[in-house]
Amino acid sequence: MAKAGVLTPQATDFPRWYQDVLGKAELAENGPVRGTMVIRPYGYAIWERMQAEMDQRIKAAGARNAYFPLFIPESYLKREAEHVEGFSPELAVVTHAGGKELEEPVVVRPTSETVIGEFMAKWIQSYRDLPLLLNQWANVVRWELRPRVFLRTSEFLWQEGHTAHATREDAAAYARRILHEAYADLMATVLAIPVVAGVKTRRERFAGAITTLTCEAMMRDGKALQMGTSHELGQNFARAFDIRFLDAAGERPYAWTTSWGSSTRMVGGLIMTHGDDAGLRIPPRLAATQVVVTVVKSGEGVGEVAAKLVGDLITAGVRAELDDRVDVAFGRRAVDWELKGVPVRIEIGPRDLAAGAVTVVRRIPGTKATVPIETVLSDVTEALEIDQAALLAEATQLRDARTVDVASVDEAVAVAVDDEGWARIPWATLGEEGEARLSESAVTVRCLIRPDGGVPDSEDEPDLIAVVGRSY
Amino acid sequence: MAKAGVLTPQATDFPRWYQDVLGKAELAENGPVRGTMVIRPYGYAIWERMQAEMDQRIKAAGARNAYFPLFIPESYLKREAEHVEGFSPELAVVTHAGGKELEEPVVVRPTSETVIGEFMAKWIQSYRDLPLLLNQWANVVRWELRPRVFLRTSEFLWQEGHTAHATREDAAAYARRILHEAYADLMATVLAIPVVAGVKTRRERFAGAITTLTCEAMMRDGKALQMGTSHELGQNFARAFDIRFLDAAGERPYAWTTSWGSSTRMVGGLIMTHGDDAGLRIPPRLAATQVVVTVVKSGEGVGEVAAKLVGDLITAGVRAELDDRVDVAFGRRAVDWELKGVPVRIEIGPRDLAAGAVTVVRRIPGTKATVPIETVLSDVTEALEIDQAALLAEATQLRDARTVDVASVDEAVAVAVDDEGWARIPWATLGEEGEARLSESAVTVRCLIRPDGGVPDSEDEPDLIAVVGRSY
Repeated sequence: MAKAGVLTPQATDFPRWYQDVLGKAELAENGPVRGTMVIRPYGYAIWERMQAEMDQRIKAAGARNAYFPLFIPESYLKREAEHVEGFSPELAVVTHAGGKELEEPVVVRPTSETVIGEFMAKWIQSYRDLPLLLNQWANVVRWELRPRVFLRTSEFLWQEGHTAHATREDAAAYARRILHEAYADLMATVLAIPVVAGVKTRRERFAGAITTLTCEAMMRDGKALQMGTSHELGQNFARAFDIRFLDAAGERPYAWTTSWGSSTRMVGGLIMTHGDDAGLRIPPRLAATQVVVTVVKSGEGVGEVAAKLVGDLITAGVRAELDDRVDVAFGRRAVDWELKGVPVRIEIGPRDLAAGAVTVVRRIPGTKATVPIETVLSDVTEALEIDQAALLAEATQLRDARTVDVASVDEAVAVAVDDEGWARIPWATLGEEGEARLSESAVTVRCLIRPDGGVPDSEDEPDLIAVVGRSY
Repeated sequence: MAKAGVLTPQATDFPRWYQDVLGKAELAENGPVRGTMVIRPYGYAIWERMQAEMDQRIKAAGARNAYFPLFIPESYLKREAEHVEGFSPELAVVTHAGGKELEEPVVVRPTSETVIGEFMAKWIQSYRDLPLLLNQWANVVRWELRPRVFLRTSEFLWQEGHTAHATREDAAAYARRILHEAYADLMATVLAIPVVAGVKTRRERFAGAITTLTCEAMMRDGKALQMGTSHELGQNFARAFDIRFLDAAGERPYAWTTSWGSSTRMVGGLIMTHGDDAGLRIPPRLAATQVVVTVVKSGEGVGEVAAKLVGDLITAGVRAELDDRVDVAFGRRAVDWELKGVPVRIEIGPRDLAAGAVTVVRRIPGTKATVPIETVLSDVTEALEIDQAALLAEATQLRDARTVDVASVDEAVAVAVDDEGWARIPWATLGEEGEARLSESAVTVRCLIRPDGGVPDSEDEPDLIAVVGRSY
């Protein structure tokens, strides 16, 4: 389906292909301040659909949305030692406001554990107030020296969940619930992205966490992208912010907290998991526009039939859109819809229509068929289901084909660097020393998993497998 | 229905009543950095419902959501002279980031006309690209010396629409369409807040606009609150950012732009329009929880009946919630639901149930009735509709009763200051001199309207009426 010249082919230069898609599909571009991005309407519609699906899952897991301030007193960040060390190099600092120099500079939130910790301490009195399950949709700022739109930007949009629990076990269970029921489920069933869920090594852990759980996806160039993380924070933030509760025995122990986040980075993951040389391929369940009905040429009742079909599709629960811009060349519109990755395009022209037929172009398998107008509704509905599954199957196959079991650090480097894939190596064989050696080749342990693929309780379990690769 | 001691009565001290409600109904509180706020889950749920209703109306008006950066180069703001003058005193400035001093300081957006103008100039080539209709949901920062939660905060959440058009007429029509179809309609039909829509005087205009349209509501203390504004920006920003388009005649004229915003301030307006001495009163169409089914005491199948009723209500399209926290005193829960303003409370206890009845407490009229369990579903559905209308009627009546026609500046001041209401005075009588005199008593012209109540094309139309009052 690729049209020569529209995009740099993936095989020629994957990063350039990515930049090309961002521009040609009108997804996003760089903002004027270094590392910031402008998300254009077509890109934002993808994010909005992700948000809606994620928000639904987070609410189903019992968390409630709230909003905490963008500005955090600098002193708050210093209260948790590892946290401030982790984030200090990336902070943006407001020193002047309202025409004056501030007495205490404020930082623009890089994440909100500290300010939310302060309020959890106020709101939690007794065990009856636990668990406290909060989530916020917000922008955060982490200054980036090597920004890349959607993947690593100085400002990004995300949700950050923050919860407090009476016991370590309850906190651990909740961090896992979010990982599976919100993140991994959304990614598999809506984004059609198969993720490996596991635990991070000490080296890769979130600053201030005792355990970091992660969902890792493989991009079409064999690199990994971290799609969402869920952290057990132990009692670290509870100690720093004095989050305590009166328990049934009359004691006032510290609570156990968690935090978890997923961001606009998922949009980048979506592009790089499914895109091909003709542009994006949006999974039908995610697509804001699932079907576009294109009027090839006006006249002979074509416009009316097309409009009616859009209405019928919408009535049938399909997100459909009409393209009747006949003043724009048909070929150009076809290329545009391909670039934008709309799953199904129905083309209606006078000739086809005279024969009682329309043309159905499916972006995911790349097929084109003439379909009788009477059956187009059921054909298309069915195609959307089939293509959703096909996209997940294709991504899973690509990932599995590029994942190799190895037995030494050298082999792991070779797989990640030369073969551009993932290596699976026993964590007992690799260890922290091996992990340090990998880093010399810009290779990292993406996560540790159990031999059966399950998520470990911690990185100290025996017999774990390290999944190793290059990453964004 | 007021319970003594829970809230300061409105008549005693309205601002304290407002602060009390914010706390007791768990809506919001002050953040640690001056002027910032923390929106708690119950308050945020109100905002989320407003957002959803507003977003729907904005999309129906053809605008598409996008996202532009939080950080704006300081130089951008300086390009439009009035704009920079208007916003300079309120800016928060980032001077350090990533551990270094920045070469050019960046401001935290107080509004996004400038950065969006920059991109409109890139995206608009010809008349075919017009109108360009954008909207963004975002946080903005305007440093406040006298902050008040929801009403005036250093950071607030809002939507800001930005559009570009080929002609002045088209821009003017669109600014009005948003004012009526998005803002005034949402406020009347969902928030049950009657607004006066009109045009601002030169003195009260948005910095950089040629016309500012506004929706003004009267709070229960007789003061005005600006609930949403829509601006014609003329060609001011188009000139500053070089937003031009190739027209059909081959010329490249400047575009005509608009901007329009509504914010978390609406939550404050909701509280102060409908709240009474017992707490909030949420309009049924807005309420995230329209009906709470309270188990008075457990036992004898009460819990099961209550749970089934919640299920039946949800099936019937009612947003219902179960309160079966029988370990918390029933009286305390009743006071809580009243404070939170949930429109209908259904109380189920063993005694009533034995008689085949439940108690229905309606927050808005403040009535309590025993209702046979067979008819409760239809009774409640009907009550929600009736109470939505009643709330709007009550607010309209309160406002109209406190609005007086006057013929002199002195009378206008007396009405606004002594009688705590609004005065209507011919603009020809008041004029800019009279407006300046009003300001000595902290009284302002809220807006100018036509004698028939319509929105004028501009403040220069003859026979306009000035609506005058104190404001938040």
